[in-house]
Amino acid sequence: YDLTIISGTAVGKVNGLAVMGSDSGSVLPIVAEVTPAQGASGTVIATGLLKEIAQESIKNVSAILKKFTGKDIRNIDIHVQFIGTYQGVEGDSASVSVATAVISAIEGIPVRQDVAMTGSLSVRGDVLPVGGVTYKIEAAAKAGIKKVFIPRSNAGDVLVEDRYREMIEIIPVSHIEEILEQALVPANRAGFLAKLKKLAEHAMIPPNQPITTEPGVV
Amino acid sequence: YDLTIISGTAVGKVNGLAVMGSDSGSVLPIVAEVTPAQGASGTVIATGLLKEIAQESIKNVSAILKKFTGKDIRNIDIHVQFIGTYQGVEGDSASVSVATAVISAIEGIPVRQDVAMTGSLSVRGDVLPVGGVTYKIEAAAKAGIKKVFIPRSNAGDVLVEDRYREMIEIIPVSHIEEILEQALVPANRAGFLAKLKKLAEHAMIPPNQPITTEPGVV
Amino acid sequence: YDLTIISGTAVGKVNGLAVMGSDSGSVLPIVAEVTPAQGASGTVIATGLLKEIAQESIKNVSAILKKFTGKDIRNIDIHVQFIGTYQGVEGDSASVSVATAVISAIEGIPVRQDVAMTGSLSVRGDVLPVGGVTYKIEAAAKAGIKKVFIPRSNAGDVLVEDRYREMIEIIPVSHIEEILEQALVPANRAGFLAKLKKLAEHAMIPPNQPITTEPGVV
Amino acid sequence: YDLTIISGTAVGKVNGLAVMGSDSGSVLPIVAEVTPAQGASGTVIATGLLKEIAQESIKNVSAILKKFTGKDIRNIDIHVQFIGTYQGVEGDSASVSVATAVISAIEGIPVRQDVAMTGSLSVRGDVLPVGGVTYKIEAAAKAGIKKVFIPRSNAGDVLVEDRYREMIEIIPVSHIEEILEQALVPANRAGFLAKLKKLAEHAMIPPNQPITTEPGVV
Amino acid sequence: YDLTIISGTAVGKVNGLAVMGSDSGSVLPIVAEVTPAQGASGTVIATGLLKEIAQESIKNVSAILKKFTGKDIRNIDIHVQFIGTYQGVEGDSASVSVATAVISAIEGIPVRQDVAMTGSLSVRGDVLPVGGVTYKIEAAAKAGIKKVFIPRSNAGDVLVEDRYREMIEIIPVSHIEEILEQALVPANRAGFLAKLKKLAEHAMIPPNQPITTEPGVV
Amino acid sequence: YDLTIISGTAVGKVNGLAVMGSDSGSVLPIVAEVTPAQGASGTVIATGLLKEIAQESIKNVSAILKKFTGKDIRNIDIHVQFIGTYQGVEGDSASVSVATAVISAIEGIPVRQDVAMTGSLSVRGDVLPVGGVTYKIEAAAKAGIKKVFIPRSNAGDVLVEDRYREMIEIIPVSHIEEILEQALVPANRAGFLAKLKKLAEHAMIPPNQPITTEPGVV
Ligand SMILES: [Ca+2]
Ligand SMILES: [Ca+2]
Ligand SMILES: [Ca+2]
Ligand SMILES: [Ca+2]
Ligand SMILES: [Ca+2]
Ligand SMILES: [Ca+2]
Ligand SMILES: [Ca+2]
Ligand SMILES: [Ca+2]
Ligand SMILES: [Ca+2]
Ligand SMILES: [Ca+2]
Ligand SMILES: [Ca+2]
Ligand SMILES: [Ca+2]
Repeated sequence: YDLTIISGTAVGKVNGLAVMGSDSGSVLPIVAEVTPAQGASGTVIATGLLKEIAQESIKNVSAILKKFTGKDIRNIDIHVQFIGTYQGVEGDSASVSVATAVISAIEGIPVRQDVAMTGSLSVRGDVLPVGGVTYKIEAAAKAGIKKVFIPRSNAGDVLVEDRYREMIEIIPVSHIEEILEQALVPANRAGFLAKLKKLAEHAMIPPNQPITTEPGVV
Repeated sequence: YDLTIISGTAVGKVNGLAVMGSDSGSVLPIVAEVTPAQGASGTVIATGLLKEIAQESIKNVSAILKKFTGKDIRNIDIHVQFIGTYQGVEGDSASVSVATAVISAIEGIPVRQDVAMTGSLSVRGDVLPVGGVTYKIEAAAKAGIKKVFIPRSNAGDVLVEDRYREMIEIIPVSHIEEILEQALVPANRAGFLAKLKKLAEHAMIPPNQPITTEPGVV
Repeated sequence: YDLTIISGTAVGKVNGLAVMGSDSGSVLPIVAEVTPAQGASGTVIATGLLKEIAQESIKNVSAILKKFTGKDIRNIDIHVQFIGTYQGVEGDSASVSVATAVISAIEGIPVRQDVAMTGSLSVRGDVLPVGGVTYKIEAAAKAGIKKVFIPRSNAGDVLVEDRYREMIEIIPVSHIEEILEQALVPANRAGFLAKLKKLAEHAMIPPNQPITTEPGVV
Repeated sequence: YDLTIISGTAVGKVNGLAVMGSDSGSVLPIVAEVTPAQGASGTVIATGLLKEIAQESIKNVSAILKKFTGKDIRNIDIHVQFIGTYQGVEGDSASVSVATAVISAIEGIPVRQDVAMTGSLSVRGDVLPVGGVTYKIEAAAKAGIKKVFIPRSNAGDVLVEDRYREMIEIIPVSHIEEILEQALVPANRAGFLAKLKKLAEHAMIPPNQPITTEPGVV
Repeated sequence: YDLTIISGTAVGKVNGLAVMGSDSGSVLPIVAEVTPAQGASGTVIATGLLKEIAQESIKNVSAILKKFTGKDIRNIDIHVQFIGTYQGVEGDSASVSVATAVISAIEGIPVRQDVAMTGSLSVRGDVLPVGGVTYKIEAAAKAGIKKVFIPRSNAGDVLVEDRYREMIEIIPVSHIEEILEQALVPANRAGFLAKLKKLAEHAMIPPNQPITTEPGVV
Repeated sequence: YDLTIISGTAVGKVNGLAVMGSDSGSVLPIVAEVTPAQGASGTVIATGLLKEIAQESIKNVSAILKKFTGKDIRNIDIHVQFIGTYQGVEGDSASVSVATAVISAIEGIPVRQDVAMTGSLSVRGDVLPVGGVTYKIEAAAKAGIKKVFIPRSNAGDVLVEDRYREMIEIIPVSHIEEILEQALVPANRAGFLAKLKKLAEHAMIPPNQPITTEPGVV
């Protein structure tokens, strides 16, 4: 039995990636749900024993959420759950996964479950580099994931064994907008793309054309 | 004298299950009550010396509560009490019990007292695996409980002695909706089932047909 | 000079019972007062160096208070004071005393001072077992108290010396409603009993007939 | 130069009494001021490095203040300052001094500076016993104070040397109302006494006639 | 280059005085700024690594500010900055400096930069004694300051070397009103004096005539 | 791949400067974003493992922000992110960078990316001295930065090697207004300068003419 889902789509669920110890990757499911606010104003509630850097990453992601959605964020509570992290979560490399899961939950747009992702985020949506990309990609491939998003600034760090290169497509990105465009499956694609374009204008780093790598090529 | 009630029904009370040390299970009564909010907005108040993971499990359960009930959660305080846990509570395996007790209290629907349950929860209502299922099932059987709900993902971990298998029915579930359907005794069953169906649509894991095991069969 | 009052009635004051060390009981006066709220909404303020379990017991009692009284709890502050506990208070056995003192203060109904009481509480008003009942009963008897309420689930733990059995009546109870009925002296008894009946309907444990023991008989 | 004022009257200032080490008393000036609330609702702000019991005593005193004054406590901040306690304040024996200083400040009624006082308080205004009364009385006498209020329950603990007995009048009291009546100097005495009478009705301990001792007599 | 300004006037800036170690004084610039409130109500924000007594001194000063100014304190945030105190600030001797800087900022009245000051404060505006006055006065003189305000109760502690006595005028004061009168340079002096007179009526210690010492004379 | 951008402009991004260990400088990107407030009122959220002095520097900067912008600060959340500081941030030398990034984000005015800056701030906008200016300037030069702003009070501390002097222009400043004037590229320059002039009037230190140094000259 395995909690990882690698096919179809799901609202509010993303396959993140983690490194355990220094040389072992794993798929880390992240689940988001949006509810009416219980307090006088909305709040973001993250669980999974997040340590200091991970808690700060949730605050950074919330900057993007408050900008992106047209919904009045004062009326909703956002729940973010890291599944199975009973030993705690360190680092901010799940930021892109959290952003994607929450935007999926708020907007009600399904996420493709055959993709995984890793990346830190600036408060303006830029995808920043992380550690352990090689181990993470191999873990995604072993789990049956077909595509993995990594920070463009980590493209040179990928030293994946040949047998994994053929199993998975590696997609370097520089802004969260590129991930959302490819991982979400909106009913109204035109309206969604217009929203993403607006989000991309907040980028700190000037946008490049996305470099889509074929399996085994970075 | 024993605080465990194993027959009839009660509003706001559920027989949870705990493991003490590494090889001993026990029935853990969980009681919920709903009151008018004392503060400017409603809050969830949990007692019983809950440690960090247990406190986070209450936050995760609250995501489901805020979604499920039609009542305005800003006007009520929700009290959750773990009975007799003077040494503290670790872990999140009581999540399904907390959710069931609180939904019973909010909706005023009685809970069957001849059932017990264990299971972690995602913020979307999925029942996630827990530890110690064998010891928990045996403790429920010894206490006279007739049915026990366990996570479907733990079905393979059940190594119950034959004498207990004949005493208790083991029901693997994958979503809280399945527990609510079987453990609550609503006056208006049709309306209740409609509400549950809506709740099930939030599932992270695609729904399966519930596998109802006869006593001694998983 | 002794702070314990053992005759007449007083609003907002109850003779609780405590165990010091492992074999010595004492009468523990608990005083409540209700005032206009100072903050934007009402709050419960408990003093007497309450440790963690004792602080949680105050939260559990507040569930009952918010249910019981018709007064808008958002407009009042409730003060609960443990008298003379300069070494701190552990445990939740004063819960029934706190509930009785506060309901007396909110409703303005006097409490009989010739009674003492001990008992934990569920958030639905059930009286739950405590430790040290024998030492507590003997301390009450020595202080000149005439009646003592104990949890029904502790009835089998009473090993009081004969000389004390003749001095004091021991009354096992299973719901706070039974204590309120016997310890409070309302001006309008009929209205008060109607309110209590409604409170009793929240019980987790099905109500039994109260077993009133004569002095020396449990 | 000495901060202690021992003659005339002052609004919002009271001569409290402290024990340092185990055998040395001193006069401890306590100053109160009332201002428009800065926050959304009023608050009590106490300074002077108050430790846990002393902080709780401020909460207990606030129960009396909220009851006593007709002024809307939600619109004012109450400042209480222990003067010169750079080593911290332990205990609750300054409670009567704090209550007297704050009521003086709220009502604008001067306090006699030739009196000193010591005593703990219940939330209903009862004066409860304290430690070190003998050392405190001697310190007050040495400082030139003419009258000292002590808890009636401490009357038997007074072992003052003869030379001090002739210098100071010792007045045991059982309710804060007795101190306010004798230490405050209201412009409208009739209205003030009516207010005090109402305050006295909250007493936990049935009121006795105040025993006014002549100098050297308890 | 030196941050200390010793001539002209500035709004919201005061030359405080500090002792480092046990025998070395220094000029400690304190800067205040008043802004529209960011939160629902106004707050006082103090920076410079203030330790416990220093933080309490800010609370005591705020009692005076809330009384003094006619402006609605609920609509403003008050920022107080101790400049250059990277090792932290202990004690409450900067209270008069903080009060003067903030009143200058709120009212928009310039402060004379050729003066320095030291003194603790009661919540009613009384100037209370501090330590290290001799070292502080000598530091002010060395920095080129022309006048220094000290607590009247410290007048007997001044043991300044002759060469400094000739450089600086020492002014003992007993109430903050005396400092404000001499250190601030209001456009409308008559209106300002009327406000100060009202402030002085809150004094705990009966006002004396200010003793203005000529340079070298205390 | 390098996160530092050294040409063009970007809204909400500034090249700050840091010292690592005692003798090594680096460019520290600081990113700001402004969003609709999530809570009842706006707040400033800073991430990057800021230690105590760095957290206080954010509070000091917020005094300037609340004064500067005409926008109602109660309706916005301000996010400030130190990029890549996984070992934590000590000190307040990034204050000018934070102020510049946030004002850029609030006003939507681009920042020149060929400049870097270092400097502490008073709550009135004065630029105060920092440590390590020589190492910071050399790091900026090595990164390809063309201009660097330093505190005027640090002008005498610059001991830059000749080869760096020719690569970078060093501009000492005494008020944040001077940095904003030169680093921001507003669409409406006249209106912007008028706003800056008003900001400069809050200066603690009387304004001097800005000394613009040519490359290699301080
Ligand atoms: Ca990840
Ligand atoms: Ca794109
Ligand atoms: Ca359980
Ligand atoms: Ca079903
Ligand atoms: Ca008790
Ligand atoms: Ca009954
Ligand atoms: Ca005292
Ligand atoms: Ca009287
Ligand atoms: Ca000073
Ligand atoms: Ca004067
Ligand atoms: Ca910097
Ligand atoms: Ca300029």
